[in-house]
Amino acid sequence: MKVAVIMGSKSDLPVMEEATVLLKQFGIETELRVLSAHRCPDEVAAFAKGAADNGISAIIAGAGMAAHLPGVIAAYTTLPVIGVPVNASSLGGIDALFSIVQMPPGIPVATTGIGKAGAKNAALLAVEMLAIAEPSFRQKLSSYRAAQKETVLASDKEVRNT
Amino acid sequence: MKVAVIMGSKSDLPVMEEATVLLKQFGIETELRVLSAHRCPDEVAAFAKGAADNGISAIIAGAGMAAHLPGVIAAYTTLPVIGVPVNASSLGGIDALFSIVQMPPGIPVATTGIGKAGAKNAALLAVEMLAIAEPSFRQKLSSYRAAQKETVLASDKEVRNT
Amino acid sequence: MKVAVIMGSKSDLPVMEEATVLLKQFGIETELRVLSAHRCPDEVAAFAKGAADNGISAIIAGAGMAAHLPGVIAAYTTLPVIGVPVNASSLGGIDALFSIVQMPPGIPVATTGIGKAGAKNAALLAVEMLAIAEPSFRQKLSSYRAAQKETVLASDKEVRNT
Amino acid sequence: MKVAVIMGSKSDLPVMEEATVLLKQFGIETELRVLSAHRCPDEVAAFAKGAADNGISAIIAGAGMAAHLPGVIAAYTTLPVIGVPVNASSLGGIDALFSIVQMPPGIPVATTGIGKAGAKNAALLAVEMLAIAEPSFRQKLSSYRAAQKETVLASDKEVRNT
Amino acid sequence: MKVAVIMGSKSDLPVMEEATVLLKQFGIETELRVLSAHRCPDEVAAFAKGAADNGISAIIAGAGMAAHLPGVIAAYTTLPVIGVPVNASSLGGIDALFSIVQMPPGIPVATTGIGKAGAKNAALLAVEMLAIAEPSFRQKLSSYRAAQKETVLASDKEVRNT
Amino acid sequence: MKVAVIMGSKSDLPVMEEATVLLKQFGIETELRVLSAHRCPDEVAAFAKGAADNGISAIIAGAGMAAHLPGVIAAYTTLPVIGVPVNASSLGGIDALFSIVQMPPGIPVATTGIGKAGAKNAALLAVEMLAIAEPSFRQKLSSYRAAQKETVLASDKEVRNT
Amino acid sequence: MKVAVIMGSKSDLPVMEEATVLLKQFGIETELRVLSAHRCPDEVAAFAKGAADNGISAIIAGAGMAAHLPGVIAAYTTLPVIGVPVNASSLGGIDALFSIVQMPPGIPVATTGIGKAGAKNAALLAVEMLAIAEPSFRQKLSSYRAAQKETVLASDKEVRNT
Amino acid sequence: MKVAVIMGSKSDLPVMEEATVLLKQFGIETELRVLSAHRCPDEVAAFAKGAADNGISAIIAGAGMAAHLPGVIAAYTTLPVIGVPVNASSLGGIDALFSIVQMPPGIPVATTGIGKAGAKNAALLAVEMLAIAEPSFRQKLSSYRAAQKETVLASDKEVRNT
Repeated sequence: MKVAVIMGSKSDLPVMEEATVLLKQFGIETELRVLSAHRCPDEVAAFAKGAADNGISAIIAGAGMAAHLPGVIAAYTTLPVIGVPVNASSLGGIDALFSIVQMPPGIPVATTGIGKAGAKNAALLAVEMLAIAEPSFRQKLSSYRAAQKETVLASDKEVRNT
Repeated sequence: MKVAVIMGSKSDLPVMEEATVLLKQFGIETELRVLSAHRCPDEVAAFAKGAADNGISAIIAGAGMAAHLPGVIAAYTTLPVIGVPVNASSLGGIDALFSIVQMPPGIPVATTGIGKAGAKNAALLAVEMLAIAEPSFRQKLSSYRAAQKETVLASDKEVRNT
Repeated sequence: MKVAVIMGSKSDLPVMEEATVLLKQFGIETELRVLSAHRCPDEVAAFAKGAADNGISAIIAGAGMAAHLPGVIAAYTTLPVIGVPVNASSLGGIDALFSIVQMPPGIPVATTGIGKAGAKNAALLAVEMLAIAEPSFRQKLSSYRAAQKETVLASDKEVRNT
Repeated sequence: MKVAVIMGSKSDLPVMEEATVLLKQFGIETELRVLSAHRCPDEVAAFAKGAADNGISAIIAGAGMAAHLPGVIAAYTTLPVIGVPVNASSLGGIDALFSIVQMPPGIPVATTGIGKAGAKNAALLAVEMLAIAEPSFRQKLSSYRAAQKETVLASDKEVRNT
Repeated sequence: MKVAVIMGSKSDLPVMEEATVLLKQFGIETELRVLSAHRCPDEVAAFAKGAADNGISAIIAGAGMAAHLPGVIAAYTTLPVIGVPVNASSLGGIDALFSIVQMPPGIPVATTGIGKAGAKNAALLAVEMLAIAEPSFRQKLSSYRAAQKETVLASDKEVRNT
Repeated sequence: MKVAVIMGSKSDLPVMEEATVLLKQFGIETELRVLSAHRCPDEVAAFAKGAADNGISAIIAGAGMAAHLPGVIAAYTTLPVIGVPVNASSLGGIDALFSIVQMPPGIPVATTGIGKAGAKNAALLAVEMLAIAEPSFRQKLSSYRAAQKETVLASDKEVRNT
Repeated sequence: MKVAVIMGSKSDLPVMEEATVLLKQFGIETELRVLSAHRCPDEVAAFAKGAADNGISAIIAGAGMAAHLPGVIAAYTTLPVIGVPVNASSLGGIDALFSIVQMPPGIPVATTGIGKAGAKNAALLAVEMLAIAEPSFRQKLSSYRAAQKETVLASDKEVRNT
Repeated sequence: MKVAVIMGSKSDLPVMEEATVLLKQFGIETELRVLSAHRCPDEVAAFAKGAADNGISAIIAGAGMAAHLPGVIAAYTTLPVIGVPVNASSLGGIDALFSIVQMPPGIPVATTGIGKAGAKNAALLAVEMLAIAEPSFRQKLSSYRAAQKETVLASDKEVRNT
């Protein structure tokens, strides 16, 4: 099982790396790509059409501004596509959010939050999807959740003593 | 394989029915629920904690205003949760969108668009997720896509002749 | 010289007709199409790639929500693409506006206003572009402007007498 | 009488400290907690359910992004819950504001402004609530107001002489 | 114990009645007033200054547009002031929300959601405040919550059977 | 003829000084004040009620966040009140803009743009108002405009030669 | 003394009439015009340049969408220009508001609220300006305010008795 | 064939230079101007009226805040006008975007994105327009696109190897 992580521009890498780092932490093979919906549309189409056959189970796509990449990929595949809005203009990422989340009926994109938080959640969402087929991931997700909880409870202990 | 469709209030039904109708069309068993994150939080928690054991594979949750339902469910399960913002105030649904999509890192919600288009896409997204485990859905999704395409091409033929 | 008028869904027709009616008024041949960037992406790509060879000089593309159509067409052609945001959700068309106007550097879309006013202006913008090559349109545009002015001045006369 | 100050993440501490500092200044005992609605929902529920019995009279809860914490706490208690939106994303805190203030009818959250100003006002609001039962706080509030006024009038004197 | 319900204009009555109806349901005496921060500021000031002495324990103030009423009242009293943004312009109530919630540090207004949902919650919030001094209200609030929950669970039962 | 320049907090001084500097440049006497609508409302009311009798012809009032100062002053005087929204929160000044410009019918505030540009224009607007009574200001305004134009034309010359 | 009321399109008349009706009520001569900044810019320039010499003391200009009319008029005259944003698109008038209020430093426009409330306030603002030169208007404004207050107090009496 | 690049203020130069640099790269003569719609409206009108006769084929106009420059130029010429919103206030450029894109029907402005990306795309759009008359530009645009694509594919190769 492999998850592709695609971004529209290399400048999105610091955001999208949050996803790849987390996927690797879950032992999931990733395919990291820079493919622009506008600058190399044929390559995007070819990638998306072939993704299922190339062993990809889910696609994470991040882009900023008029962020068409997730929707364009979704148009060419029935694999689940997770869209991450990147804050890449003076509008705080709301342009990317609307461009990704407001898909017309028929071609869904699973949208997460703007920026690094969204990229992290995109990875977790991909793992949750894979866990439908591969229950061992469910266990790993529970451990990840437990660790998160420990961090919060440690902070809680810390501030209570101040 | 079963998909739960939860809404925060019965007034969200006309929107969320778009999802259940579509899931049934794909031959997927649905569990339709009205559960409010604020008015019956214990029931929501119990539902979310037990969902995986009750044979649910993915959860679609729709809510309006300060739409906490999808995020609250996601906090109690590692099943994929799909959030549908419902337009239920004078703000056009942007309140619900932000309340659903801007989840903090660690607990993802797969957000779709506001209203009926989002509910439809939530159902399709759920099917795409199930198809990771059950490839026969991939075929059904392709047929659905093909039918969509035919509708557009028929419209195209129609307007070209005017 | 021919101008293509493309829309993402037949439901955009009442808006986009403002453009075709105006183009015909200027004696410009139009090609009216319904082509969805998401539901028939291959047809969109084929159309856009072949547009120049098919005698099209400029393309007007209208779409609502996450309105990818103008940008996707622009990715496949160096003909000028004019994008018209359609108000097709509960967000007043701001989703479509951002999805069309905030194109990343390299692939421009000439964006007009939301809805019917934008569709009308898209047609006029196309005529202005054609007039670079065909000066006779410049004359027609001046006449159109003069008529507009007369309408305003007639209104002015009318209200001054009240 | 005790006021709890809860935040969703330790990173909210610089904002929420404005509240605790002020409460201490009024001689009110505070209980400072880090409890995440998403990462430790059971602990949040337990805290909220037991708050009244633990001698807490009002709860201040601050969170950013899809800020569910105040609403989730409010769902489990009839103590007054004051919500402070924290600016923790690229959207300037408007995501947190909508997620807190747009509560559906039935479960209120008393929302203050975004960030430090809001945290300060949350503390003052808590004191005003306590003063309903304990009139001595009314006096302290009047003194606080008088000091504020003196500061403004001193500034006024200063700029008038420039 | 009495709660004042003030509105800036009689046109806000259909919204603000949601609050008075609910307060009466809880057996709380209300004082219903129309007082404009801009059209009769002296009366507003007199009302606010005298409120505590007139036996008022909390003030609910609703207004639309540049909604100054809650903040202006808060400036003249240390009673808790609950602000309800009314949707009274073409901006969907966001103008009133910002004018009420973004109070500068020092003078708090407990803001609820826009419109009728906000007015209802304002009443509940007032009861929660009174319950600090008068525990019998805590019981009534619990009953109200229980009834809400029953309504949701009844809806749940209903949709599950469809 | 005297113009008062009022701000809600001394922190607004760097913005509001743009107005006083410009007024002095026009030879207009100014009265600079720090008066908070919320922290010293009685002083604001007294100032506004007495302004006309104290020889003030127009009032410029700047404030941030829930910026009530201009509207509150306008409620107590029929002198023209010019409101300057100050950017003093994480919302970019849109909160202050809505709180100032969206006045209900009956009590006008002449609103200028957010921040320093708005403060400068507030001063010029005040001079334009005074010029109705005192035509010599009309001449000074024309000179100011001419100087502005020269600056632009000098920039124009400069960039044309690059 | 005469006040001009200009609108960019005859469709703005129902809004702008609020201003002319009120000005007449104050006994002020009005000049009502339909002049479009875009469709007859020369006529707008000529009007604005000649306004002072034609006995006009202040100009009220209303427009919708990219509402350039008030700013364009202000560029050609040093008379005070009052801008009224008209709600004429799917954006609720926020486009017109930004286009009018966010004037660059040097050329002020006194902006009022969106729509009819703004048009009414524009008229009152004009009267307040004229009153600098003609104190008899100050008296009329006070009477108008008194009548407004009476209306509010009558509403107050009415709701108190319910 | 010549393209004019106009900006409302010299402070817009760092943004608008993106356009001139690109136009020069395409071998297109440019005329760079600083002309303010508000500070020198007569010069703007004269420029726009004479543009066609002075051999200009298309006009790029950039401005911030209430950005009237593109629309004002468009009012005086039937040459295609491309508007670039500049981020020059605390609103992130949304004020400029609305002021440029929401033109009323009849006078179009081809709007690009906010800031440098928009300025670059404005230049490319101008070249696309010129290419209608001068097909050799079509070839240059294809080369430019090819180079863009190579850059993306090089980034793609780079990240795939990490």
